[in-house]
Amino acid sequence: MRHPDRTTWTDWLAAQAATRDAAGLRRTLRPRPAADDTVDLAGNDYLGLSRDPIVTAAAADAALMWGAGAGASRLVTGSLRLHEQLESELAGYLGQPAALVFSTGYHANLAIVSALADRDTLVVSDAHIHASLVDAVRLSRAELVVVPHSDVTAVSAALAGSDKRAIVLAESVYSVLGDEAPLTDLAAVAAEHDALLVVDEAHGLGVHGAGLVHAHGLAGVPHVVVTATLSKALGSQGGAVLGSPKLIDHLVNRARPFIFDTGLAPAAAGGALAALGILREHPELPDLVRRRVLDLAAALGVEPPAGAVLSVPMPSPQVAVAAQAEALAHGLRVGCFRPPSVPDGVSRLRITVNAGISDDDWARATEVLVAVVKEHG
Amino acid sequence: MRHPDRTTWTDWLAAQAATRDAAGLRRTLRPRPAADDTVDLAGNDYLGLSRDPIVTAAAADAALMWGAGAGASRLVTGSLRLHEQLESELAGYLGQPAALVFSTGYHANLAIVSALADRDTLVVSDAHIHASLVDAVRLSRAELVVVPHSDVTAVSAALAGSDKRAIVLAESVYSVLGDEAPLTDLAAVAAEHDALLVVDEAHGLGVHGAGLVHAHGLAGVPHVVVTATLSKALGSQGGAVLGSPKLIDHLVNRARPFIFDTGLAPAAAGGALAALGILREHPELPDLVRRRVLDLAAALGVEPPAGAVLSVPMPSPQVAVAAQAEALAHGLRVGCFRPPSVPDGVSRLRITVNAGISDDDWARATEVLVAVVKEHG
Repeated sequence: MRHPDRTTWTDWLAAQAATRDAAGLRRTLRPRPAADDTVDLAGNDYLGLSRDPIVTAAAADAALMWGAGAGASRLVTGSLRLHEQLESELAGYLGQPAALVFSTGYHANLAIVSALADRDTLVVSDAHIHASLVDAVRLSRAELVVVPHSDVTAVSAALAGSDKRAIVLAESVYSVLGDEAPLTDLAAVAAEHDALLVVDEAHGLGVHGAGLVHAHGLAGVPHVVVTATLSKALGSQGGAVLGSPKLIDHLVNRARPFIFDTGLAPAAAGGALAALGILREHPELPDLVRRRVLDLAAALGVEPPAGAVLSVPMPSPQVAVAAQAEALAHGLRVGCFRPPSVPDGVSRLRITVNAGISDDDWARATEVLVAVVKEHG
Repeated sequence: MRHPDRTTWTDWLAAQAATRDAAGLRRTLRPRPAADDTVDLAGNDYLGLSRDPIVTAAAADAALMWGAGAGASRLVTGSLRLHEQLESELAGYLGQPAALVFSTGYHANLAIVSALADRDTLVVSDAHIHASLVDAVRLSRAELVVVPHSDVTAVSAALAGSDKRAIVLAESVYSVLGDEAPLTDLAAVAAEHDALLVVDEAHGLGVHGAGLVHAHGLAGVPHVVVTATLSKALGSQGGAVLGSPKLIDHLVNRARPFIFDTGLAPAAAGGALAALGILREHPELPDLVRRRVLDLAAALGVEPPAGAVLSVPMPSPQVAVAAQAEALAHGLRVGCFRPPSVPDGVSRLRITVNAGISDDDWARATEVLVAVVKEHG
């Protein structure tokens, strides 16, 4: 009964693997130990809080007190007072009226778009938006207009051309190029057209204290919704949507990635809550990140980014991998962006500034990076 | 510049809320404390392992040793040897050659379908499939044929009618009705047509030991892929895909919910690993669940389900909510399924059998449930 023209899965998987190998794009996992002598300049633990003793102790205590898992969907018996406390503290710190926590930042983005948008909605998306927001739009079946990166005029034109309910998607700091969105202008254009502006603060929260939406005086503005992750500056796992109570109530009732998912594990919620407390009490942490970003950008001769990630263009994916390997040989773990994780096809070294590294390690890391980039860049 | 016909978001959210209220379908969160006198018969912590002292201690130890978060995507520096160990143990227990762990079960399902299927793929989906698999198909843009529940002939006909690469989607135990998929027949039909059979073991793993794919001798069969969650019987958070090393390699390279997500938090991985160890060493736990399912089904006069969740039909969403409230007044937290979480529009009490409850509490719970169902059913 087999259809003679059907490609078998074995053949298809082999062909896909061969294509990746030929393009030099094969990715493999390299599990790391709990501790080693390598300095991590690749992860998104911007403030070093994931290993902070107060944060890890809070995560451990939450597991012991609340259990290893939430046990059910938040709508069944998986809503904990710990979630409620985290939501309250997140909303307070970011200057928002309400918050809802998800098991990953990816889910927060899937939720906000897919619960609001449908075929009768226009989504105007920046070209450099994160994969989770791209997937969210696809899930929603909304009409999508992708505009050139940070082009406010193009956003305005797209909104003027439709009478559908409209959502504009941006990130406060874009992850690959590290540049900042024109948030004030985007918010003004969205307001003019009764559109909702959704801003992903994944790379802004913590690096810029309460985030760039807050810094620009847009926190709590009804048509500006924020999404955030608990797994970067807050050193844990999970995501959040922040906005009006009516919006949060809608998500509780309609967001499939919220309704049909187990609630965030207690340890992740407890860890994020403790990290948030440290961030509130220690504004010098974001300041240190910013100072190191400026110093390292000057040393490497690249433009300082708005966020904590420096992108250094490399001539090819292969050279990027070689430069990464050389940094590792000198005790530095740096990242490497290759297609399809880059918006423009250019491979890059990706160096994350981290406030948790000692001054001595930081000075040594800077020396190594200058040498590696000089040789390969 | 505002378009005169555009609905404002404020009006739209208010209209959506009014529709929910009118239908008696408004959901609200009821955060619970860390400990109370209520017996939880609503969550999916089937074996009671989420509060097991060995599991919570392992979760706590993992947070202290590895950090509160993985710090990055698994492809950057977020792959831990702890993930590797969990993947190895999961694969070993389920009789599969390889495994890949995700931050939620929802993501495992999004990943397997969206990384394999595209417009040139046919997905044949059971009508009762979980929301995460429905969303996964939508993300993939595959051609979708939804077949009647557990209708193997319809699956065969759908496969025979297309020469596209094909995937068949099923759950080993369906969550709402609690019935078992005809896995042996589905696997045979899939093999006949060179199709891949993806089986979600969310409600089978742990309740049936290593799951129903394993029980039916289908573990390790190349065209049968398993997804699982770490947040139900394993008491933690996260999900997994289990299959051939070539399939896992493909997911590492292509699955967006894997590539663009932070790795599973150490505490969740550590907790799941400990729970898996307990499950391996204590086959009497699944036996106890099974015995309680049969006893309670007999007491309530419903068909015993294949899984650990008893669904008791109620005449309306409002009556279901009233019955749930009465059970709570007697110290039992039971679930309540209402549209849109049910495949057929029928509201139900949802009672989860849990091996972690003492024999005395179980006996008392059974008495209360018999009385509540007699009054409202």
